[in-house]
Amino acid sequence: MKRNKNLKNDLLVRTLIGEATERTPVWMMRQAGRYLPEYIKLREKYSFFERCQNPELACEITLQPVDIIGVDAAILFSDILVVPQAMGMEVQLIEKQGPLLPQPIKTQQDLKRIQVPDVNDTLHYVFDAIKLIKQELNGRVPLIGFAGAPWTLLCYMVQGKGSKTFDEAKGFCYQNPDLAHTLLQMITDTTISYLKGQIAAGADLVQIFDSWGGLLGKKDFETFSLQYIRQIVAAVKEEAPTIIFAKGAWSSLGEMAATGAHGLGIDWCIEPQMARQLTATASSSSGESWKGALQGNFDPAKLLSPIPVIQKEVKEMLQAFGPGRHIANLGHGILPNVPVDHAKAFVDTVKEYSPRLTVSV
Amino acid sequence: MKRNKNLKNDLLVRTLIGEATERTPVWMMRQAGRYLPEYIKLREKYSFFERCQNPELACEITLQPVDIIGVDAAILFSDILVVPQAMGMEVQLIEKQGPLLPQPIKTQQDLKRIQVPDVNDTLHYVFDAIKLIKQELNGRVPLIGFAGAPWTLLCYMVQGKGSKTFDEAKGFCYQNPDLAHTLLQMITDTTISYLKGQIAAGADLVQIFDSWGGLLGKKDFETFSLQYIRQIVAAVKEEAPTIIFAKGAWSSLGEMAATGAHGLGIDWCIEPQMARQLTATASSSSGESWKGALQGNFDPAKLLSPIPVIQKEVKEMLQAFGPGRHIANLGHGILPNVPVDHAKAFVDTVKEYSPRLTVSV
Repeated sequence: MKRNKNLKNDLLVRTLIGEATERTPVWMMRQAGRYLPEYIKLREKYSFFERCQNPELACEITLQPVDIIGVDAAILFSDILVVPQAMGMEVQLIEKQGPLLPQPIKTQQDLKRIQVPDVNDTLHYVFDAIKLIKQELNGRVPLIGFAGAPWTLLCYMVQGKGSKTFDEAKGFCYQNPDLAHTLLQMITDTTISYLKGQIAAGADLVQIFDSWGGLLGKKDFETFSLQYIRQIVAAVKEEAPTIIFAKGAWSSLGEMAATGAHGLGIDWCIEPQMARQLTATASSSSGESWKGALQGNFDPAKLLSPIPVIQKEVKEMLQAFGPGRHIANLGHGILPNVPVDHAKAFVDTVKEYSPRLTVSV
Repeated sequence: MKRNKNLKNDLLVRTLIGEATERTPVWMMRQAGRYLPEYIKLREKYSFFERCQNPELACEITLQPVDIIGVDAAILFSDILVVPQAMGMEVQLIEKQGPLLPQPIKTQQDLKRIQVPDVNDTLHYVFDAIKLIKQELNGRVPLIGFAGAPWTLLCYMVQGKGSKTFDEAKGFCYQNPDLAHTLLQMITDTTISYLKGQIAAGADLVQIFDSWGGLLGKKDFETFSLQYIRQIVAAVKEEAPTIIFAKGAWSSLGEMAATGAHGLGIDWCIEPQMARQLTATASSSSGESWKGALQGNFDPAKLLSPIPVIQKEVKEMLQAFGPGRHIANLGHGILPNVPVDHAKAFVDTVKEYSPRLTVSV
């Protein structure tokens, strides 16, 4: 793995590759966006895809939380649905309503409408944004690239919109497993090129978001999600540290560790100690124990609490993870109605309190 | 506990009180309703609350799946939101859109609009329905009564409508814990009277639905949900077998077992063996092991699969639970788009295959 020696703050990268650090690194999922007044101003002027596709705008938004909140990493401002779009689907992102894909995939015939694209043609704007962001960051903190997991992208591509249960997407997989696997493999192939392109453009690490992995039972998660994530991790992990965040899929944490991913995100519904056990146990069956880091797991709604409560609960979270092998984060994206000083209290408490953690894990 | 000796099929009751049975009992959450053509016909003629509040209609709907699908229990046709309604809130149930409570609870002032009602005044129509259903069932199968858990009812009473994250409800609890606990205790007191009334009217067992328990981390689940469920279980468990179904709250299964509940529902995201471990371990710390039954956990979307796949997967589920201490069910409510013969294949497979299970658990 190439190592970026120009990073002034490399806490996150060092934690992922198993080095000891002086304190716990911290960032927040969806940190660039909807709760920041500076972002909301841009949202009033430009559509979502303008913000995504214009490298200057994407760069400005990506850097906002680094400057305003003081997080230890920037994450590219984009959306997981740029991949289905690049594959040939129409994607609308309607403010406050969520995504709409007006022509979802339902049949073999529908599959003919999409392809595995040349990402340098269809997603070059992302790579351009990354190059600009890296230049503007100038080594202050690492830049996180990302993509949606194939299963989560299939959910949107088949259901056509957000859903609590994605039962049409699940029904599609259970009724047409062959079609589902064809689609999942096409998404996987696109995603591998896309993440490699992000790393080549300068992303220091990457995260795979499986937001809907937790809708599947353990066996189905292996069948329809993890086998494809495994391909992606295998293809990119030698090039950059790789984090898997499969929300709710706690029962497969051991199998996710066994992919060789450097980091695993967990939500607030699993306790850190249990996550440590699950990742240690399953990987030891393959002969060696997992050396990666856990990422999470503060309840995003808890940032609505008064600041002293946030401080107390962040300390409890840090103690539960212990020093080392932990990246402080929320257990899901930050909510739009979180006051900026509450987000800052989360980050500041990690910075102030984590150097004092002493119990080793 | 009084024992109803007039039940011709008492598989479910016997399983809950720890007796061995010749096969695994089976029913389906939301079995009375939206996937049945006979129900849809009634829905076209009568509003939701007409169907709930008219004992003849509620009785007819409750009995439909017993006659059509052949389940081992009837469950009262009603909705968890009749309790907030009885407490003084306006509740609208809009077909295909979900619930709307136009004046949600946000402040101390709002709390003054609700009260702990006399359930014999406000919910007598439920007790009337139960009496009629029991008469019409004539002992064929037991009748399940139910109520929402206080936490899940608070979610709707504060958020005012359905939500993926119920972040307004969670924010309310984190910002105003005293108000939240006042509200939760009022709901708890109402629910205890309501379930006792259901049992007095003839319900053979009761289930507490905590549909949104899985949105809370383990500590918050204890604080805002389980301590109230514990009060309810303590108040009714000597009168009738009691099942807790807190969807997604797998990490508190041990604590739920320790309430003395006779049954615990689980969803398809936890494996039966893990659920057995969690319920056995935690209760042994209190000196005795839990003797109750697990209920679940077939993925409702799997009923969209071809029938041979359903049969195969139901057999795998039955084997994973093993014979005894299991109530076959879905891991959540049946989906509206499930073909009736698929639902019947689920029930039939349990009936045919479970007597052949031999590995003891």
